[in-house]
Amino acid sequence: MLKAPLKPEEHLATAAGGLLIHRTKKSGLRMAAAMEHEIDGPERTSISTEAYPDFARTTVATVLKPGEKLRVVKILAYGWSSRRSFPALRDQVGAAIASAKFSGWDGLVREQRKYLDGFWDAADVQLEGDPEVQQAVRFALFHVLQAGARAEMRPIAAKGLTGPGYDGHVFWDTETFVLPVLTYTQPEAVTHGLRWRHATLDLARERAQTLGLKGAAFPWRTVRGHECSGYWPAGTAAFHIGADIADAVQRYVVATGDLDFEREVGLELLVDTARLWRSLGHHDRHGVFHIDGVTGPDEYTAVVNDNIYTNLMAQKNMIGAADAALRHPEQARRLGVDEEEAASWRDAAAAMHVPYDKELGVHQQCEEFTRLQEWDFAATPPSGYPLLLNYPYFDLYRKQVLKQADLVLAMHWRGDAFTPEQKARNFAYYEQRTVRDSSLSTCTQAVIAAEVGHLELAHDYLGEAALMDLHDIHNNTREGLHIAALAGAWLAVVAGLGGMRDHDGNLSFAPRLPSRINNMAFSMLWRGLRVRVDVQAHEVTYSLRNGGEGAKLDFLHHGEHVTVTSDTPLTLPIPALAPVGPPPRQPFGRAPARRMPDL
Amino acid sequence: MLKAPLKPEEHLATAAGGLLIHRTKKSGLRMAAAMEHEIDGPERTSISTEAYPDFARTTVATVLKPGEKLRVVKILAYGWSSRRSFPALRDQVGAAIASAKFSGWDGLVREQRKYLDGFWDAADVQLEGDPEVQQAVRFALFHVLQAGARAEMRPIAAKGLTGPGYDGHVFWDTETFVLPVLTYTQPEAVTHGLRWRHATLDLARERAQTLGLKGAAFPWRTVRGHECSGYWPAGTAAFHIGADIADAVQRYVVATGDLDFEREVGLELLVDTARLWRSLGHHDRHGVFHIDGVTGPDEYTAVVNDNIYTNLMAQKNMIGAADAALRHPEQARRLGVDEEEAASWRDAAAAMHVPYDKELGVHQQCEEFTRLQEWDFAATPPSGYPLLLNYPYFDLYRKQVLKQADLVLAMHWRGDAFTPEQKARNFAYYEQRTVRDSSLSTCTQAVIAAEVGHLELAHDYLGEAALMDLHDIHNNTREGLHIAALAGAWLAVVAGLGGMRDHDGNLSFAPRLPSRINNMAFSMLWRGLRVRVDVQAHEVTYSLRNGGEGAKLDFLHHGEHVTVTSDTPLTLPIPALAPVGPPPRQPFGRAPARRMPDL
Repeated sequence: MLKAPLKPEEHLATAAGGLLIHRTKKSGLRMAAAMEHEIDGPERTSISTEAYPDFARTTVATVLKPGEKLRVVKILAYGWSSRRSFPALRDQVGAAIASAKFSGWDGLVREQRKYLDGFWDAADVQLEGDPEVQQAVRFALFHVLQAGARAEMRPIAAKGLTGPGYDGHVFWDTETFVLPVLTYTQPEAVTHGLRWRHATLDLARERAQTLGLKGAAFPWRTVRGHECSGYWPAGTAAFHIGADIADAVQRYVVATGDLDFEREVGLELLVDTARLWRSLGHHDRHGVFHIDGVTGPDEYTAVVNDNIYTNLMAQKNMIGAADAALRHPEQARRLGVDEEEAASWRDAAAAMHVPYDKELGVHQQCEEFTRLQEWDFAATPPSGYPLLLNYPYFDLYRKQVLKQADLVLAMHWRGDAFTPEQKARNFAYYEQRTVRDSSLSTCTQAVIAAEVGHLELAHDYLGEAALMDLHDIHNNTREGLHIAALAGAWLAVVAGLGGMRDHDGNLSFAPRLPSRINNMAFSMLWRGLRVRVDVQAHEVTYSLRNGGEGAKLDFLHHGEHVTVTSDTPLTLPIPALAPVGPPPRQPFGRAPARRMPDL
Repeated sequence: MLKAPLKPEEHLATAAGGLLIHRTKKSGLRMAAAMEHEIDGPERTSISTEAYPDFARTTVATVLKPGEKLRVVKILAYGWSSRRSFPALRDQVGAAIASAKFSGWDGLVREQRKYLDGFWDAADVQLEGDPEVQQAVRFALFHVLQAGARAEMRPIAAKGLTGPGYDGHVFWDTETFVLPVLTYTQPEAVTHGLRWRHATLDLARERAQTLGLKGAAFPWRTVRGHECSGYWPAGTAAFHIGADIADAVQRYVVATGDLDFEREVGLELLVDTARLWRSLGHHDRHGVFHIDGVTGPDEYTAVVNDNIYTNLMAQKNMIGAADAALRHPEQARRLGVDEEEAASWRDAAAAMHVPYDKELGVHQQCEEFTRLQEWDFAATPPSGYPLLLNYPYFDLYRKQVLKQADLVLAMHWRGDAFTPEQKARNFAYYEQRTVRDSSLSTCTQAVIAAEVGHLELAHDYLGEAALMDLHDIHNNTREGLHIAALAGAWLAVVAGLGGMRDHDGNLSFAPRLPSRINNMAFSMLWRGLRVRVDVQAHEVTYSLRNGGEGAKLDFLHHGEHVTVTSDTPLTLPIPALAPVGPPPRQPFGRAPARRMPDL
């Protein structure tokens, strides 16, 4: 409010800010915050602070003559806990403020820059020729880091902390899309995410018991470990969440060699999920192992027998548990695992049913899938999508229409279970029936499109994944970002165009560029090494950027065993792509936006 | 209240009664009632009536000396409607009272007796040797009549008017169990029930459209024709309701020859249900017709491909629609049925998939059923039943456990689709997996147990069906009687021990008695004839009790073509039962109570 008229050359400058100091949320979480100001202005500057029990407001006012400046640096600190008391939280927040004041603004910026430089050094992607996707992939990576870096024994929610979508719940996509990216770029964050799952094991065991099962049944959606899904055919029945967690454990251990984590945390997760599969599945009279009545990743098909993704991931889960028990015999014994139980996992895994349609020469998403009626895509108007909002589940479930990659996702994470020819035929078949009503689909389609040689299509899908929120492709970014889809953008580059896999702990690359990208580079962490891959149209250069003298890495380059050392980058030609024919078509009206428009 | 002391030999006699005269119920139904008294007592008797707008009370008081009597006859009348006004209802009720007073008490009793004598003459069952079941079957028949005789364009609810169970809703069991009994005993009631369904056709067509289907999708549970089921896997997905209605139409027309009804009402029901099947099902690439993603009668398996009951009933539905269209070409044309559509029904019916497990030599309740995991009956305590209250659906759905006869029900109504050997093997297989948590199961098990030669078991199941409510077998008779299960008691006698079938309009009997019953007699209506069947241990006598001189009936007796005329009863020997081996066992602890305890 003006107290007196100012001279024309003078300006009134004011700054005011309020802050809630502490509050207990409905969830039982306590939050505390503090604020300090560093104020640099004329001497006549007035600073007043009103303090209430749980609220504070600071007002700064001055009159500036031409050339004078008022500079206000606000330092905020906050803390939260569901266990510690308010006084303890206030102490933590006070210490953070004090430390920040000690560092000062420039010091804080320096620390943050150092942290981020470290991240980008291990994670950055460069794409020459598509600046829009280049920017979008970095946007995506930043938000994956933002969501995952400070989870600290809390789940990484589907929307991170960016919006109210899904009410803050966490789902399987954290383990399936977000943790793999963090595994290769910020592995410490993965241990936090999996330690949080481990901390909920008792609830998951209780849930399994309620369901008449052994081991642990992790919740389809949750905040604190309880099952919060209301519609069981697309909730509880999606038991693959257990295998997804086990897969994240195995990937982290393989990529980091962190056997301490495996012994302390990983083994128990593997054992309890393996026990679930062993009790959920059963042998038929011919000794074939089946997992019946479950729902796979694709939510347009539910409560089916032998979902191929579930079966293959459960197979890996059970073998992984048996292997880990062998590596940590003492801990395994404490968990009650004996030779008979481990053998029963290996036997079930070996006998696992993998549905295949011999006549069509394609695998089946689940038993009988390829015999179902086709969806009438030609009769489905654009306004009919997403289908789940316009058609009853009963209709979707009984037809050959996919919300999202399911079998194609299995071909990514269990690519070792398929031949190249099978992958090509399967991809072509399911591509024509997948509508991508889920944001989780496109990155996986990019990965497999690239593997089977449809590089332009892979580029299109990479673009869709990376631009998911910048272009608001699912028209719901206002609810928060699609963190897993954004993580998928990195996977679309590294596992897609870069062809990175690590089946059975063997790192492999098979990079190839689509026509519009003339240069691509990415980095990743592998057992403490920073591996950099620079891809040109006809050759690729692998280099190790740490690890000290004599460090070396054995890996596969387009199927050939090669070795790179820390001394010398290794440049290799990219073999010519065998003819693959025209790319498969998508359902009518559901093709992705082209990154390289036809001329 | 005593006004003055009575002499010792005098008695004060009073009678009072109130009656609600009219009310509108929440459902929009209006009810009106009236009451009159005929009082016969000493002259000093006082009668006072208080009348309010919607309530009346009458009080009668007198003093009786030894030997004197006070006789009060109350005459009540009531009427209800959702369409007519209160004045119209009051007129109807007034007319009923006037007519009753004109008839007088004895006249009313006479009319009622005549009506009931007529019913019992066509419907009664005599069972010598098991008086408890004899009484229970009559109790059952009385309640079926009570529920069905005056439905008059209203549904016959699952509990009739006997209790609040199921909130007054009607389900498929009315068409599948109640209407068959009424067809052979009180056929006029069937036309009312089916005319009510016909009156809801527009709602059923609207529902089909909502679901993306053609024709009519009748509601799984309803009061007025709207789908009222909240859980679609055990509601909407149970599309067999359409075929059950069509089957009831076909049975009524076959048993009565009422072609006027078929033309006016039946044809349209057949056509609209056939259209549903044609659009719900589809041909696979080999031209086999499948109906996917539906739920059959057994509620412990849901949303499956090719439920055998649904497929076989839909097959009959489509053939029946095409046949009826041929009989009523003009009406069919008005309904838009042309030669191509009728041919598409016949083709789909001919191509219908009937799941069969070649290795086990048994039919499958649905595709893959016989490959599913077995339920662990030995580990299921008595308190675990009914399973649906103690185990999650996800667990029930994926195992070989049946709430109720499903394939075995198909072997009753579509017995023409199975060989005798198949029936025996199928019955043995499913009997071991059926827990009878549904009251609708036991009568069908009686019917097929008898057909495959397990007569003692058939007797046990007959007993369970008949005693369902008298023994409160499902512990919920307080909610109302199980009208369909009680109807099933008649079916257990007539179709079970009597072996009555009418596939393709050919009446057949194959009576045989269990050891405890030394004589059984039943009657039924068939195309206007009253057929009586008297069964002894080794012979059976068929007689016609109306139809006039020269009336005759061709039928099958244990597979042999025979003819009985109205002149002479026909006595035939019962062929010896081929050896059938020991009866199949039920799941642990789920055997029915024995009617003939082992000595």
